[in-house]
Amino acid sequence: MPPESRLSFVRALSVDAEGWGFFLCTQKEVRQGRTGELFIWLVLQDKTGSIGGRVLKDAARFREEFDRGDFVKVQGRVDTNNGRLQLLVERIRRVNPDQDKLQGFREDDCVLSTTRPVDEMWGELNELIAHVQDPFVRMLLQRIIDEHAEKLRLWPAALTVHHAYRGGFLEHTLSVARVALSLGAAYGANKDLLTAGALLHDIGKMEELDYDRVTTYTRDGNLVGHVTLGTIVVRSAILAIPGFPDVLRTQIEHMIVSHHGRKEFGAPVEPMTIEGMILAAADDLDTKISQARTALAEEGDGEFTVYQSRLGRVLWRGPGF
Amino acid sequence: MPPESRLSFVRALSVDAEGWGFFLCTQKEVRQGRTGELFIWLVLQDKTGSIGGRVLKDAARFREEFDRGDFVKVQGRVDTNNGRLQLLVERIRRVNPDQDKLQGFREDDCVLSTTRPVDEMWGELNELIAHVQDPFVRMLLQRIIDEHAEKLRLWPAALTVHHAYRGGFLEHTLSVARVALSLGAAYGANKDLLTAGALLHDIGKMEELDYDRVTTYTRDGNLVGHVTLGTIVVRSAILAIPGFPDVLRTQIEHMIVSHHGRKEFGAPVEPMTIEGMILAAADDLDTKISQARTALAEEGDGEFTVYQSRLGRVLWRGPGF
Amino acid sequence: MPPESRLSFVRALSVDAEGWGFFLCTQKEVRQGRTGELFIWLVLQDKTGSIGGRVLKDAARFREEFDRGDFVKVQGRVDTNNGRLQLLVERIRRVNPDQDKLQGFREDDCVLSTTRPVDEMWGELNELIAHVQDPFVRMLLQRIIDEHAEKLRLWPAALTVHHAYRGGFLEHTLSVARVALSLGAAYGANKDLLTAGALLHDIGKMEELDYDRVTTYTRDGNLVGHVTLGTIVVRSAILAIPGFPDVLRTQIEHMIVSHHGRKEFGAPVEPMTIEGMILAAADDLDTKISQARTALAEEGDGEFTVYQSRLGRVLWRGPGF
Amino acid sequence: MPPESRLSFVRALSVDAEGWGFFLCTQKEVRQGRTGELFIWLVLQDKTGSIGGRVLKDAARFREEFDRGDFVKVQGRVDTNNGRLQLLVERIRRVNPDQDKLQGFREDDCVLSTTRPVDEMWGELNELIAHVQDPFVRMLLQRIIDEHAEKLRLWPAALTVHHAYRGGFLEHTLSVARVALSLGAAYGANKDLLTAGALLHDIGKMEELDYDRVTTYTRDGNLVGHVTLGTIVVRSAILAIPGFPDVLRTQIEHMIVSHHGRKEFGAPVEPMTIEGMILAAADDLDTKISQARTALAEEGDGEFTVYQSRLGRVLWRGPGF
Amino acid sequence: MPPESRLSFVRALSVDAEGWGFFLCTQKEVRQGRTGELFIWLVLQDKTGSIGGRVLKDAARFREEFDRGDFVKVQGRVDTNNGRLQLLVERIRRVNPDQDKLQGFREDDCVLSTTRPVDEMWGELNELIAHVQDPFVRMLLQRIIDEHAEKLRLWPAALTVHHAYRGGFLEHTLSVARVALSLGAAYGANKDLLTAGALLHDIGKMEELDYDRVTTYTRDGNLVGHVTLGTIVVRSAILAIPGFPDVLRTQIEHMIVSHHGRKEFGAPVEPMTIEGMILAAADDLDTKISQARTALAEEGDGEFTVYQSRLGRVLWRGPGF
Amino acid sequence: MPPESRLSFVRALSVDAEGWGFFLCTQKEVRQGRTGELFIWLVLQDKTGSIGGRVLKDAARFREEFDRGDFVKVQGRVDTNNGRLQLLVERIRRVNPDQDKLQGFREDDCVLSTTRPVDEMWGELNELIAHVQDPFVRMLLQRIIDEHAEKLRLWPAALTVHHAYRGGFLEHTLSVARVALSLGAAYGANKDLLTAGALLHDIGKMEELDYDRVTTYTRDGNLVGHVTLGTIVVRSAILAIPGFPDVLRTQIEHMIVSHHGRKEFGAPVEPMTIEGMILAAADDLDTKISQARTALAEEGDGEFTVYQSRLGRVLWRGPGF
Repeated sequence: MPPESRLSFVRALSVDAEGWGFFLCTQKEVRQGRTGELFIWLVLQDKTGSIGGRVLKDAARFREEFDRGDFVKVQGRVDTNNGRLQLLVERIRRVNPDQDKLQGFREDDCVLSTTRPVDEMWGELNELIAHVQDPFVRMLLQRIIDEHAEKLRLWPAALTVHHAYRGGFLEHTLSVARVALSLGAAYGANKDLLTAGALLHDIGKMEELDYDRVTTYTRDGNLVGHVTLGTIVVRSAILAIPGFPDVLRTQIEHMIVSHHGRKEFGAPVEPMTIEGMILAAADDLDTKISQARTALAEEGDGEFTVYQSRLGRVLWRGPGF
Repeated sequence: MPPESRLSFVRALSVDAEGWGFFLCTQKEVRQGRTGELFIWLVLQDKTGSIGGRVLKDAARFREEFDRGDFVKVQGRVDTNNGRLQLLVERIRRVNPDQDKLQGFREDDCVLSTTRPVDEMWGELNELIAHVQDPFVRMLLQRIIDEHAEKLRLWPAALTVHHAYRGGFLEHTLSVARVALSLGAAYGANKDLLTAGALLHDIGKMEELDYDRVTTYTRDGNLVGHVTLGTIVVRSAILAIPGFPDVLRTQIEHMIVSHHGRKEFGAPVEPMTIEGMILAAADDLDTKISQARTALAEEGDGEFTVYQSRLGRVLWRGPGF
Repeated sequence: MPPESRLSFVRALSVDAEGWGFFLCTQKEVRQGRTGELFIWLVLQDKTGSIGGRVLKDAARFREEFDRGDFVKVQGRVDTNNGRLQLLVERIRRVNPDQDKLQGFREDDCVLSTTRPVDEMWGELNELIAHVQDPFVRMLLQRIIDEHAEKLRLWPAALTVHHAYRGGFLEHTLSVARVALSLGAAYGANKDLLTAGALLHDIGKMEELDYDRVTTYTRDGNLVGHVTLGTIVVRSAILAIPGFPDVLRTQIEHMIVSHHGRKEFGAPVEPMTIEGMILAAADDLDTKISQARTALAEEGDGEFTVYQSRLGRVLWRGPGF
Repeated sequence: MPPESRLSFVRALSVDAEGWGFFLCTQKEVRQGRTGELFIWLVLQDKTGSIGGRVLKDAARFREEFDRGDFVKVQGRVDTNNGRLQLLVERIRRVNPDQDKLQGFREDDCVLSTTRPVDEMWGELNELIAHVQDPFVRMLLQRIIDEHAEKLRLWPAALTVHHAYRGGFLEHTLSVARVALSLGAAYGANKDLLTAGALLHDIGKMEELDYDRVTTYTRDGNLVGHVTLGTIVVRSAILAIPGFPDVLRTQIEHMIVSHHGRKEFGAPVEPMTIEGMILAAADDLDTKISQARTALAEEGDGEFTVYQSRLGRVLWRGPGF
Repeated sequence: MPPESRLSFVRALSVDAEGWGFFLCTQKEVRQGRTGELFIWLVLQDKTGSIGGRVLKDAARFREEFDRGDFVKVQGRVDTNNGRLQLLVERIRRVNPDQDKLQGFREDDCVLSTTRPVDEMWGELNELIAHVQDPFVRMLLQRIIDEHAEKLRLWPAALTVHHAYRGGFLEHTLSVARVALSLGAAYGANKDLLTAGALLHDIGKMEELDYDRVTTYTRDGNLVGHVTLGTIVVRSAILAIPGFPDVLRTQIEHMIVSHHGRKEFGAPVEPMTIEGMILAAADDLDTKISQARTALAEEGDGEFTVYQSRLGRVLWRGPGF
Repeated sequence: MPPESRLSFVRALSVDAEGWGFFLCTQKEVRQGRTGELFIWLVLQDKTGSIGGRVLKDAARFREEFDRGDFVKVQGRVDTNNGRLQLLVERIRRVNPDQDKLQGFREDDCVLSTTRPVDEMWGELNELIAHVQDPFVRMLLQRIIDEHAEKLRLWPAALTVHHAYRGGFLEHTLSVARVALSLGAAYGANKDLLTAGALLHDIGKMEELDYDRVTTYTRDGNLVGHVTLGTIVVRSAILAIPGFPDVLRTQIEHMIVSHHGRKEFGAPVEPMTIEGMILAAADDLDTKISQARTALAEEGDGEFTVYQSRLGRVLWRGPGF
């Protein structure tokens, strides 16, 4: 490829931008135009967002040059289609890590991620655990965190709804903990229980999801679900701690099974304790605000977003728009 | 007490019946009439049903003679109050087992029970397990049944809604199994999975309920619930069986978490397999028919029962009324 | 057309298959590409399924060669569009029955049908009636069946939701009868009533639908609906049978008006008898399982189907996928 | 009974009123006080309303003097119990028609009735029919009205919800017709169809209810329901009119099956025509206003009624209260 | 443009019509075909309806010739795309009012409008006010009408659901008034209150919507909503009328806050007066009938419309179709 | 009354306690026993709770001695009726303030109140306002608070559901503010808007309720409701502040109209901003926790409360019960 200018990150792209860049290809499909010509439709991602694209020329050749899931080097030009940006790809090929890092290729730049540094989040997590006063609860949290450390640092919180990016699980977990603890302070609730509930409420997602740059549901995830899987993880860890008080076990399990708040949202049991009510409120609010922020961050005309079908309303971007 | 005639079982009582009998006292309350006089309000049970009663005379003396939960010997007369039968109690005292068995007292006569002999049901349960072809499933069922054998033979299926009597759990479990297997035959579903699902779907009730002649919810029962408790029981039993296939484990757990059929009925996950759909249909129908039979068995005028608020309709008793 | 190889049935087609075949054309539309060129979009059906297609070349000529609803002879090649198979049609013309049967054209091969032989189902239907003990019920069923014999053998059970193919009505009716009778045996319900309810519950569809290779709603079907139409059919047949007991009439009509089980599903009255509850459960389960089987039979990657919006969930294909 | 002063009609009774009067006894129950004494609880009705009562003295004697459903002569005094008026009955006996009419007994004075003269309503009904232009519709209405004339003049419109008194059926029917026709004029809808829909929408209640001073559901009423029963009545009458246009039949049947407006209110089919929408709106509004008027007419303190559970709100009596 | 024949109004267009005409352009988007070519997609409106269109040739040139919101002169030919008519535009340019009026351009011909003459509606509105007897209510209505006169004559009643065209607000308001008054006559309700409620129920839409040939929501419209905005308008006008009775104010405000009838439809309070019930019924019916008429007016095959998702059903066009 | 011992406050009463005390009488009704004797049923309140009671002897005399709404001096003995405590009253008379204060009568001891000192809450309220940075918001809050100062210090937050006692309004308002601000800090929301939303969200209750020791709904409260009334209060105050930014006004009004969170809970508009979402979550959680605490504070056996119908579940009291 010629030494043209480098494309900016996805969030900063605008119409008529032209140049080359590195991306993760998360979708790839060879399609046929109405008059029979082949073209490639694809989606490219970097750490700031996603953009659709098309390879219109030499599709037959370029289709061999990369697969879905590959990091790719791409040259092209941005235009719009039905009001959304897309990249008209002129050249595309699989990344050659050794060679391309000389031009600045870094895997981390190409994967949609939380904006918070992982190490900072990890530190916050450990601090939360260190502040737990009950030794059984502290030991329980420490063990479960240690056991899932690797996944916890990388995992997203969901497929599409909220925090659907690398590190999103940890970001959501910490946010729920922060919110639940501040609510707990307002109502004099048990701090240790709230920390446990917040850190463990979605722990079943470690088994519900599968993440390797792209997120999918596991078999257990679909058929058993993270609410029950999480309770099993916790029960199993508790059984391995001699002398863990039974009433404490029940309280922690209660927070996990009830954290969706209402039966129609998938909670087999609804919150029966102040701590359970606080956790469900914190989880619900954090999820809604994450959805709202994603919607508000999308480009668009006017003060209001398009209709958000999950929330059942439009959102306001503020007067400055 | 004088050697009068013995009262018939509750179901056969009618107005003006007079005499003595043995019962379980399941409710007892000392109340004060509007003009200040004391009386005792109570509920008496035998294996055929329940009847309310009052001790109007000498309440201060008789209140010391028995407690809620005692087997009692009672002498009195049946009349009606607001259209329902009640027993006007003239004498009442705690049973003296050694002495009273000479007059025919038998605990089993005084406890509301399934009409099916327990041993016959137990045999049917074991036969179902014996017909399971997959050795892992068979072993799983055998172990769980063995472990809970004592409770399984006695437990009711619920506090009030359906099969709320001694042996009701086993009766409901076998009925669901019979129905699920016949539906499975019609649709070519997996027989072993259906047997496992039917026998285990409510196994969490062994921990959800507490039964000692009278039924209550346990702490875990309220706060965690039988759907999740049952899945944990099964997971734990499976882990103890070396080589238990993982996909089989997921399928069985799926049937337990999804057996309430819909999220608003407390299923954290809805049936995603033919076997899961069949089990949920069998459980729902068996519960509804049990409720209907209880309603139809109650005394009443006319072809239709009173309005059944749980079912949201009246039921038809048939033309022969 | 040249003597090329013959295309397999729809269910067995795969990419790059090429050749000719006979189909029923169920959709046909002349469209214009973005740059003005004409093409024909169509859907072709045979007894195993449906496939979309396009005539890209000589559309102006071929559009005169066939209409929607015709049996057609087609030559073309299979490719994919957005992940689904389609047929790129090179030649297409109306079937000439006399001439084309020499090449193997058979109407029955081109119409989506139940897999069960109609005569076998017809025999089963008559056997069910023969087993009815009550002479009035038997006579009622015999008369209604006789009167609608021709339609009963061909009709589908619905437009799109379930059993939406030739013979689907009979297949669904017999399946509901089989299931209801086995449930009835488990609960000691009245066999004759269940047979009558099962065979008659959808009889109003004979007037609700219109089927002539393709299914549509009639005016009465939309404006009155099969629940009420069916009750009228039954009432009218009963009035023609002298001495038909009135209470029996009410019971049978009750099963028809209540067979959708709940008001929000279109039952003006909800089941008030054990038989009514069983029939509604059998109909609901048979419909759900039919939907599930259709979904599971569709091609797709992975263990799970795509999201089924009618059922509100994905379905599991099993581990072998 | 001594020649005391005569009690006023129920609506005009107030505390401490004393004297004798004629009533219909609609409820009678012999009960036992907490200290064993017998008393009779009863409900007495006249054309203006209902009042509860008790026979405290000589209950054993008076219980033989009358039955539920009898017209009775009563002597007593009004007092209040828990804020509601009741009649403390001193004497009560069955009416002797011949003798008591000398003292002014008239059956019509003792039965809760519409305030509109029946003959006036009957005239209005016939005028509505006379204004129908389509000869088939007119003939249909005339025949059905003639056939049910006797019941139509007496029947209530429902058991308890609205227009639950003698003549209430006709009153409701005419009100719906008046409202539907005025709505129809506003929207240019078909007048004949609206007249037919209004006069026939509840005609199934002639078979759903049984009224002989007191209202009950029939077997067909509960198990089949007035929506379907009414459609059958209409279908049957239409079949007896040679040449009745089929499309007209469907339109009229559509208005009957859809008049509850929504599936969850028991309409198996929802309105698909302007006329159907108007009829459903007229029926719904007339029912709601009838409920509201009954609630507003009840005695009570303050500007607002008590909470109306069917309507889910309180109602405003106006500032003058 | 050459002196060809003039196109008819939109409602009368049919395939292969060719010529020129004047329209309002309500949508305009420059798109790229799959093979890279530019074209313009647009929507053209006149007083009878809307039609989509495409500029396939010389798109780069014509894109400069007009903008969304302009009146345009267009030359082209009608064809169909996926069963709907579209206009293939050959030439298009902004209207030059002075010059084009010589050829018959009139703004009013190009804007979708009510079919009722505005002056006639305005006269009807004033007559309604003149008939109000209470001087306070009359003054209130007169002032609010005067203040919003300009908007009232032009505004639509909604963005898309019903009466979504110029003058639609007034048309809907008058229709609700007519219907509410005729219902009020049937039930003896307060005429003045009903007139006030009907004329003011949607007055908040003057602030909720913004209309300048095209309709949008205002910031206040989205964030506060017309129900509350309307109540504020009324409260403010009342405060400016010395001596306005407080109870009358409350009654009028009640009708505005409750006019959506049910909480789930956005009424913060549900109707608690006969007048409130009538207004909510009139508004609901008028909205439904307006939707139905729009659906029935759309072109289509057969007796029934396509499925109307807002109404949840198909509608019947009548037998003559 | 004789110089017996003084009764403790209501919360501390137990069976067989005997003596005299001062209370507020909030209910009083003269009733008749089944055998005709009069007695007085009443409810007595002090700052810690409520207790029912009966005057069985000399009812005719004591009924003249006090009215509902009076402070009363009472002598009696505590017993139980159907498991709840009640006071058997031997003497009762209206308080004579001058004389009785010598024996320790203080109005504040007899009115159910928040446990927080009013002056402390008032200080906290003013501090919240002082921390608002935007001068317009601060001025708005200051004015509204000043205008309603007297009511704000005394009012309850609701009739029965939550914070239904003197000072409850202020307690709830401050709690929502505290919670909303801590949530706002977690999500970087606008602090001034949250303070305004929290302090004003229920301000309409100043007009919705009427409180003079006992709480009732006003006419405007029922017919217009506090959501709309509060928006009007705010709009009116803003109009009196020259230069108040319009966008700020809309944002504050949005928080008031949307604070019930969902349409079915009476929000005519749902939250469309992060601040609106936070406020609705804070209000909902504070209400639920207040309900839960009231339920948990009630006496009862066992670890779980009775079924809470508003919350649809039982609550857990904790293991120590």
